[in-house]
Amino acid sequence: MDVSIINIGDELLIGQVVNTNASTMARMLSEAGMAVRRTVVVGDVYQDIWNSVDEAMRSSDAVLVTGGLGPTKDDITKKLLCDYFHSELVESGVALENVRHIFESRGYEMTPVNRAQALVPACCEVLNNDLGTAPCMWFEREGKVLVSLPGVPFEMDWLMRNRVIPKLQETFHTDIIVHKNILVQGIGESFLSDLIEPWETALPENIKLAYLPVAGMVKLRLTGKTRNNQNILNNLNIQIAETVQGLYNLAGSYIVGEDCETLEELVHKTLTEHGLTLATAESCTGGNIARLLTAQAGSSAYFKGGIVAYSNEVKESALGVQHSTLEAHGAVSEETVREMAEGVRECLGADYAIATTGIAGPTGGTPEKPVGTVWVAVASVQGAETKLLQLGSTRRQQNIDRTTNQAFAMLIRMICQKP
Amino acid sequence: MDVSIINIGDELLIGQVVNTNASTMARMLSEAGMAVRRTVVVGDVYQDIWNSVDEAMRSSDAVLVTGGLGPTKDDITKKLLCDYFHSELVESGVALENVRHIFESRGYEMTPVNRAQALVPACCEVLNNDLGTAPCMWFEREGKVLVSLPGVPFEMDWLMRNRVIPKLQETFHTDIIVHKNILVQGIGESFLSDLIEPWETALPENIKLAYLPVAGMVKLRLTGKTRNNQNILNNLNIQIAETVQGLYNLAGSYIVGEDCETLEELVHKTLTEHGLTLATAESCTGGNIARLLTAQAGSSAYFKGGIVAYSNEVKESALGVQHSTLEAHGAVSEETVREMAEGVRECLGADYAIATTGIAGPTGGTPEKPVGTVWVAVASVQGAETKLLQLGSTRRQQNIDRTTNQAFAMLIRMICQKP
Repeated sequence: MDVSIINIGDELLIGQVVNTNASTMARMLSEAGMAVRRTVVVGDVYQDIWNSVDEAMRSSDAVLVTGGLGPTKDDITKKLLCDYFHSELVESGVALENVRHIFESRGYEMTPVNRAQALVPACCEVLNNDLGTAPCMWFEREGKVLVSLPGVPFEMDWLMRNRVIPKLQETFHTDIIVHKNILVQGIGESFLSDLIEPWETALPENIKLAYLPVAGMVKLRLTGKTRNNQNILNNLNIQIAETVQGLYNLAGSYIVGEDCETLEELVHKTLTEHGLTLATAESCTGGNIARLLTAQAGSSAYFKGGIVAYSNEVKESALGVQHSTLEAHGAVSEETVREMAEGVRECLGADYAIATTGIAGPTGGTPEKPVGTVWVAVASVQGAETKLLQLGSTRRQQNIDRTTNQAFAMLIRMICQKP
Repeated sequence: MDVSIINIGDELLIGQVVNTNASTMARMLSEAGMAVRRTVVVGDVYQDIWNSVDEAMRSSDAVLVTGGLGPTKDDITKKLLCDYFHSELVESGVALENVRHIFESRGYEMTPVNRAQALVPACCEVLNNDLGTAPCMWFEREGKVLVSLPGVPFEMDWLMRNRVIPKLQETFHTDIIVHKNILVQGIGESFLSDLIEPWETALPENIKLAYLPVAGMVKLRLTGKTRNNQNILNNLNIQIAETVQGLYNLAGSYIVGEDCETLEELVHKTLTEHGLTLATAESCTGGNIARLLTAQAGSSAYFKGGIVAYSNEVKESALGVQHSTLEAHGAVSEETVREMAEGVRECLGADYAIATTGIAGPTGGTPEKPVGTVWVAVASVQGAETKLLQLGSTRRQQNIDRTTNQAFAMLIRMICQKP
């Protein structure tokens, strides 16, 4: 079965808001084994929405529409869906109860404008939106499905996960999908592809491989598909485990971990499981490492803190880097990064420490140390390991992101005692 | 005139990559006064691409297509465009020279696969892509335009700015557009809308207003339009300046600044212009403030460094917060945030300092201090100002973002001595 996505909203067409809804929905559907055929963004224009809905209903099995459900006059989705499905607006008891409940729980009075949120086309089924007042509406016609969701990202996210995807799976009797992520670092995508070519060629037919490269690492995703049956599912899991073993035989030294989406998630999991603590000393990454860790709930269990040592004075005063080291080797040097990592580990009393120093760009390089020259260190009570990166790019954000992932991978390797 | 955007790529349909190209292109076009009617994402499927191109060519004046230009077999855009425009692939001298030049400058040998990048439909005009080997192709038919661009974001970005938008403006004789951004903070969108309603109603007909709310602030954007004529443009600029003055009369106390896209950009500009330095002490924002500042090239001129003081020990040892303060008032308190700001300012030797401490969520609240309780401080040599935020949300990232913008606004107000 395949799905089309339509996101409605003028704000998406002037480019001031990045349309994350489309990618979030596509990822969820894809992970649930449903293919997305097309995604469309249109403004709050009746005829443009109509055309997109009509095309999508012709070409796909299911159509998911977000946006245009607010109580203001621009929002025309409900009116259009009434016309499209030859229905009329009626007040839904379920939806009204939900609006009333949400207003009560926030301590507000429900106004007539709010009450109008409970009006839905008579022919739809309302899927309850626990997080907001806009209804989620499910329509069926001639074996095809259209679902209208609110455009607010966290409401859409919750509804997709808890209402829409389970009901699509049930309606279309979709296969069960099993995913396995393997995080690979220290080898470029094309070299990795050459290295694992024999294994990839020999993959079982029901297991697909995707390369998902991000900032200095590659996420390999295996996707296995099976009918909805417990025995077959167990067999699939065994088959995937064997397949992963084959990958380790070829590329084990580049594999940092499994079953996480990102390296910061893997760091979070590794430190939490081992009961270890971490401190950071960042120069060229400027706080990016700290904020990726602290963006995860529960990070206070292991993250002691970090120092963003942008100036040399701060490297000396807050991290205890020797003045003579900075004089002799410069801020971007193996000696400095080592003292930064050891200094912050000691100063903040952590088991492990990460340090970065480099020239992120776009300018600031010299012939000896061009833009993209970065030193990374990881320190434990047993001492520090350092690594020189030559990123060969003047793009600042890319250099920050690649340095960050390199530091995370080095930390995980040190903790897990991988080579 | 209006434009449709088509982004081609299977990777966009599985949601592993957020389609930033669509929003970047939409923003650039919108800022240049061209309306985007629709954006579509399709996979590397000939018929799906054909249908999207054909629909777009019927409904819009110009169609911009990204992706599908690599040398691999999945990439079918060029073949399809040959068919669509009844043309055939020929080697373009201009494109070949560009490919050769790029390989030479990187010190690589050009292979036959690379040379194939110079093949283009005979009927198109090649717009030189200074940053990559994939050509940018311009097609015209019956007064309409189709442009095919590479999907690599930084190449697309450069080509849009330097080649495509100027040529679209010339071809369609578009109006000149003048934008004016005003950054407003400390008032919600709906209250702001009520406050400035008389001003908004009286706006001149050729000046449009957009509300662009982001994490605790609202960006107001005025857009003025005029024919391409220097005298008229001068008049428009005077008219916009007068309009902005009217806004100050009503909402001046909420206006933080002008002519920037974000508050971090305004902080960057303000500190640079005033020759002042900054240090940060972050607890609940976890490094987000530091990384937003350091993501901007040139931030080392004013940013001394920051301390991410996640644990109480670090608040004491690195920032000099009194043990008795933490004991008596807790980490999330006015007293603590004040000592954090003053401590980091002194310790890192900066003119100004920002500090944050709070409960970002989703859990960790108490009845007295629920999730979303945050204290922010800004310190100068004259002392510190503090502010309590009650964010009323358990969404971690949102709370981090809103705290960050609150801190930036307080800093700018203190430096510029606004109330």
